[in-house]
Amino acid sequence: MDRSAAEALDRDDPLAHTRDRFDVPDVLIYLDGNSLGALPKAVPQRVNDVITQQWGHDLVTSWNKQGWWDLPDAVGSKLARIIGAQPKSVVISDATSVQLYKLLMAAARLRPGRSTIVVEPTSFPTNAYIAASVADVLGLTVRWWSPADEPDISAVLDEDTAVVSLCHVDYRLGRMHDGRAITQQVHDTEALVLWDLCHSAGAVEVQLDDWDADFAAGCGYKYLNGGPGAPSFAYVNPRLIDDVRQPISGWHGHAAPFALERDYRPAEGIRRLQTGSNSVIAMAALDAALDAFDGVTMTALRAKSLALSDLFIALVDERLAALGATIEAPRSHDQRGSQVCVRTENAYGFVQALIKRGVVGDFREPDLARFGFTPLYLRFVDVWTAVHQMAEVLESGEHELPENNVRAPVT
Amino acid sequence: MDRSAAEALDRDDPLAHTRDRFDVPDVLIYLDGNSLGALPKAVPQRVNDVITQQWGHDLVTSWNKQGWWDLPDAVGSKLARIIGAQPKSVVISDATSVQLYKLLMAAARLRPGRSTIVVEPTSFPTNAYIAASVADVLGLTVRWWSPADEPDISAVLDEDTAVVSLCHVDYRLGRMHDGRAITQQVHDTEALVLWDLCHSAGAVEVQLDDWDADFAAGCGYKYLNGGPGAPSFAYVNPRLIDDVRQPISGWHGHAAPFALERDYRPAEGIRRLQTGSNSVIAMAALDAALDAFDGVTMTALRAKSLALSDLFIALVDERLAALGATIEAPRSHDQRGSQVCVRTENAYGFVQALIKRGVVGDFREPDLARFGFTPLYLRFVDVWTAVHQMAEVLESGEHELPENNVRAPVT
Repeated sequence: MDRSAAEALDRDDPLAHTRDRFDVPDVLIYLDGNSLGALPKAVPQRVNDVITQQWGHDLVTSWNKQGWWDLPDAVGSKLARIIGAQPKSVVISDATSVQLYKLLMAAARLRPGRSTIVVEPTSFPTNAYIAASVADVLGLTVRWWSPADEPDISAVLDEDTAVVSLCHVDYRLGRMHDGRAITQQVHDTEALVLWDLCHSAGAVEVQLDDWDADFAAGCGYKYLNGGPGAPSFAYVNPRLIDDVRQPISGWHGHAAPFALERDYRPAEGIRRLQTGSNSVIAMAALDAALDAFDGVTMTALRAKSLALSDLFIALVDERLAALGATIEAPRSHDQRGSQVCVRTENAYGFVQALIKRGVVGDFREPDLARFGFTPLYLRFVDVWTAVHQMAEVLESGEHELPENNVRAPVT
Repeated sequence: MDRSAAEALDRDDPLAHTRDRFDVPDVLIYLDGNSLGALPKAVPQRVNDVITQQWGHDLVTSWNKQGWWDLPDAVGSKLARIIGAQPKSVVISDATSVQLYKLLMAAARLRPGRSTIVVEPTSFPTNAYIAASVADVLGLTVRWWSPADEPDISAVLDEDTAVVSLCHVDYRLGRMHDGRAITQQVHDTEALVLWDLCHSAGAVEVQLDDWDADFAAGCGYKYLNGGPGAPSFAYVNPRLIDDVRQPISGWHGHAAPFALERDYRPAEGIRRLQTGSNSVIAMAALDAALDAFDGVTMTALRAKSLALSDLFIALVDERLAALGATIEAPRSHDQRGSQVCVRTENAYGFVQALIKRGVVGDFREPDLARFGFTPLYLRFVDVWTAVHQMAEVLESGEHELPENNVRAPVT
């Protein structure tokens, strides 16, 4: 397949126009949107307005007049569609790890008398750390589930299972769980499930309400493009919300925050997940970023994502196999997220050499180069060019050069 | 005292120049910096650079190249001087309420076998709510201490006291505790103290290291001027840090976050207070805002704050007493924070009428108008004009007009 075939795919792409909603540097092929999404064009002006007008000029009155107080709910309801949730079941606040702590504590407290939290040992580390901490605080036990050893999660579920905490799409290998089937299996034992959607939201189809999921959380800075360290989202199934008690009971989650009562009474609905004041600037940036999804169905988004990763896989198979680089990702659409890894020797040097050529991915120990496909701003021709550059790197041996293998002290 | 006397005070003010570091609207006399600090001039450009260049152009590489990863420590160390702490004992992250939860859990865990957390019932509500939640999670009891009923805290401390959680300056009446004396009294019973510095940091002298305080936290958006919902700070006394275990154990607080280990090992030093990714945009805004303190000693800042509130008190006594409005604030410098309340009938309408005249304060139930004095940007002539406007409101009866007494639904 040559470049013109990729260009033809772009001409026929019903989502080609959404790239114009982003400032992607011309010199880059950015395949790291699964780490930090690109800048939506609407963000700088919106943030500048919040800072200079709403904060600088209107000052404290903006909490009411500019709707600052309601942003966590308003932005949450805007985001809800992207994860298959109804409005008012999603709220924005805090870092993802804080959100996971709140939800896991809340979930475990809904299953008193049950003693285990199920987590994958190869989860993104925060998920395992938070599960261990919640287990420690509540006197529970972590039970590790390795799908590689035991594909059927039912084998580790029993009447002692309180909560199952899973990453919907694996951060490393991009394997996607069947959200609907696992939710059902967990419910069959009367346990609860918490879905981490960090690598799902904005890239794959998520149907929380349809799955009848219990809890979910995810970050705002990957496929949602809310900016570095953007606040996270929390979802609680409306059938549970009245019984949910989360432990970080700050005044923003109180039923009457301005009555300044001595004792805590949780707010009605999803608002009870709130804790303290979130950065209005960061919240406004995420709000503006979500407008890049206007008019885009999740079905169309998922179709584009798969078309991009299908093309990538086909080109890697065709051009890189003979050069010693192979695909490490689910071939099946049902199990593939929106990222694909390439396994190669000197994977660190491979990633560095590609970055010098303007193709940005990231390295994962020990021998993986990870590439994410953001359907809102990537073109098929970007995928073609990326693999072309990969072939040139491997052919020239740039990935083996000493200067490309000096490890940075961090990341 | 006439206006020219206030102008003379401004001419002699060694901190008069720091007002130029802020964009305070010309039409306002802003006495609500204890709720939301004014905009430092350095913030918009810094945030725009972070968004358009560091995020938009350099994308994920900025985590290392632009020092994003180190911002929580770097900004914490910059802030440390303002609260009398050594560098590397302060870190920035999360909302204040989240920070209080982490620190209170950590503190209580350092005193196993002790069963009570001491809190004031008239604390800012979050402090009471978080204490109640931590007590609930750990099986402890909240013990209420009302200084109005029992001035000596020693009366409520005993061998069962695990932690004392206090607001250094009261959010409502502005009464300031003796940080050094109370810390000593708490230590005499071998309990630990957590100081909430929301209404202290950047306005009054705080000497955490000198006091030998154990833990402290506070927000970034009042006298520190970091913007609406700015991230909070946490202090842990270096003698305790190696033993501190906080429960929201996200990957940013891990000893080797990029080793992606399955099990949690806390980072060395204050970094272990970190949890997840904080908004880099919000953190950069706070970082730029703190530069407004360059070259300002806390002694000079406190002297200016007291001179402002002294003038305010003297003018209210002189001009408003006959109009039925009286000072509700400690007269003693030792017990006064950086705010003063005025008690009057129709206090709600009084605040609204003043806002219409460009004098911004806020209303507190049932009959208080609260005014904060930010020493970095307020002039003595502002204080004079504010009281002059108050006299005109009370003389004209504007505070009693129906249109000034329509309550907003929230705040």
